[in-house]
Amino acid sequence: MITNFPDWDVMRMHYDVIVIGGSAAGLAATLYASRQGLKTLVITKDIGGQMLLTNEIQNYPGFANTSGFELATKFKEQVELYGPEFVYDEANGIERDAECPGLCFRVKTMSGDYHATALILAFGKTPKDLGVPGEQELKGKGVSYCAVCDGPLFKGKTVAVVGTGDQALEAANYLASVVSKIYLIHTHDRPIGSEDLVSQVLSLPNVQAVPNSKVSALKGTSKLETIIITNTTNGQNSEIQADGIFVEIGYIAKTAWLKDLVKLTPQGQIEVDRKSKTSQPGIFAAGDVTDIPYMQAVISAGQGAIAALSAYNYVQGIKGKTATRADWRAIKVQTTK
Amino acid sequence: MITNFPDWDVMRMHYDVIVIGGSAAGLAATLYASRQGLKTLVITKDIGGQMLLTNEIQNYPGFANTSGFELATKFKEQVELYGPEFVYDEANGIERDAECPGLCFRVKTMSGDYHATALILAFGKTPKDLGVPGEQELKGKGVSYCAVCDGPLFKGKTVAVVGTGDQALEAANYLASVVSKIYLIHTHDRPIGSEDLVSQVLSLPNVQAVPNSKVSALKGTSKLETIIITNTTNGQNSEIQADGIFVEIGYIAKTAWLKDLVKLTPQGQIEVDRKSKTSQPGIFAAGDVTDIPYMQAVISAGQGAIAALSAYNYVQGIKGKTATRADWRAIKVQTTK
Repeated sequence: MITNFPDWDVMRMHYDVIVIGGSAAGLAATLYASRQGLKTLVITKDIGGQMLLTNEIQNYPGFANTSGFELATKFKEQVELYGPEFVYDEANGIERDAECPGLCFRVKTMSGDYHATALILAFGKTPKDLGVPGEQELKGKGVSYCAVCDGPLFKGKTVAVVGTGDQALEAANYLASVVSKIYLIHTHDRPIGSEDLVSQVLSLPNVQAVPNSKVSALKGTSKLETIIITNTTNGQNSEIQADGIFVEIGYIAKTAWLKDLVKLTPQGQIEVDRKSKTSQPGIFAAGDVTDIPYMQAVISAGQGAIAALSAYNYVQGIKGKTATRADWRAIKVQTTK
Repeated sequence: MITNFPDWDVMRMHYDVIVIGGSAAGLAATLYASRQGLKTLVITKDIGGQMLLTNEIQNYPGFANTSGFELATKFKEQVELYGPEFVYDEANGIERDAECPGLCFRVKTMSGDYHATALILAFGKTPKDLGVPGEQELKGKGVSYCAVCDGPLFKGKTVAVVGTGDQALEAANYLASVVSKIYLIHTHDRPIGSEDLVSQVLSLPNVQAVPNSKVSALKGTSKLETIIITNTTNGQNSEIQADGIFVEIGYIAKTAWLKDLVKLTPQGQIEVDRKSKTSQPGIFAAGDVTDIPYMQAVISAGQGAIAALSAYNYVQGIKGKTATRADWRAIKVQTTK
């Protein structure tokens, strides 16, 4: 009845479900999966993901005022009550596991391979690079993509924020109380965002707007020293001396490594249906890495719950196909110790 | 530029958005709508809706252990920070408002009519009736549809719980610590639900299983006295004397009154797309009243947020069509006092 099943050594690392990502969607999925009794592994670089980028959260229902860090911590503590395992690593490959064809997946990381019947992809989006000379070399040496995370490193110093929308405005608004001076580099006459936020940021005494400008290069030897900007109306270059630059120009789903596995939108987001199923049976996805509308913690958390409940149904179905429940339980007892 | 606009008297009751329903989806939608600056009215019979039916919630991310009442109260307090208005009433009619064709809706209630540019339908599901003689007459006189709400009224008394799945088991499990004796009336040999819950409930000393049985009538003069049950295998009738009966046989979306306005599924759920739009432009829906998979507070809350953000975009679009922003603001200042 059970054919081509992985050997016991492999099975020791076999999970019902592996959740990739530890932000709102991933942690909600983990909560639901492990509460349903699924043997669950979370592979993530951090706990909180993009929630950590938000200093103040007022729109997660149930918390009138919290921080991304506090909310992520609460999620994690709650999840831990149900015993999922965590591996702090980055998944860099997924394939159908040849040792149990049609039954499970192999997830590759630096620390080893992990096997699961179902996967939930919930690793969110990643800040966009500027794509200019000097950026890669100076990452972490003055070039940052997270004002809330790295702002305190620039206390009393001069920084630039580059970006035209709310994301850049929120970063500048936060940094204004930390650093001594901010150049707000944006491509239009005036930042384009929520009108109250635009007005507030432009009225801050230590914010200097640098309109009609884009960054064309970053320079510095051991750390960032000079930002080369190009005027978008007349093409002329000029320089800004700064200790740091915060790149706040949006986010992308880094999913190119999954393109042969699941269907992606032209923007690289993972396509999911209303049950959070991807185009690949057994792989589910939730949160900002998917083509869900609007990036919000509660929306991601809700979708994570949907993904986990759908994964649960899928895993139950696979178990039914491969063995009686009793057989499967015996396998699991033997292999997961 | 503004044609056929409602007169000022009507406009006094004009809102950007009316949310119908005050449970997880409705309150999350209200939070998002009012935080976006929309003039928002909530029409609801209660605060919490089906959340109130749950005594213990462990799977709303952020709260390791809470009750439906506590969570609903937190939602409400948070929502109130942004100034939406509440009317405690039942909506019983919705129509395109003839006074501003294509621009707004009229919602009818017992307490009057309310007008809005957009609507969010989030009034959840309603417990199913048994549909047997005596039920309508004895509602609230021993016949209940909510163990958590009404259980304490039957302290030390004898009750029946009718239903075969988890909903009935959870009700019996809760009631066992309140009432003196429970008859658990179910249609099969054994209740059909989560195996651990089945075992636990059947092991309770004051729970008596009444298998292979359905309720065929309820009798009593001023209150419930006798339950007539019919054996599903041999068709024989028998009687149970009880002070109360809890009907726990599922929920339905009571949407027949909306059938000419929005597209419904064959089960009566409101069809929505991924942005929570219904088939009627300007009407959005969220939560258990829709065809969303899985009934869970966090899933409903996430969908409520989506509905509100979509409604916001819709309202902005309507404002753009009817007047400049400045004109519209002037109208609103004049009419909302």
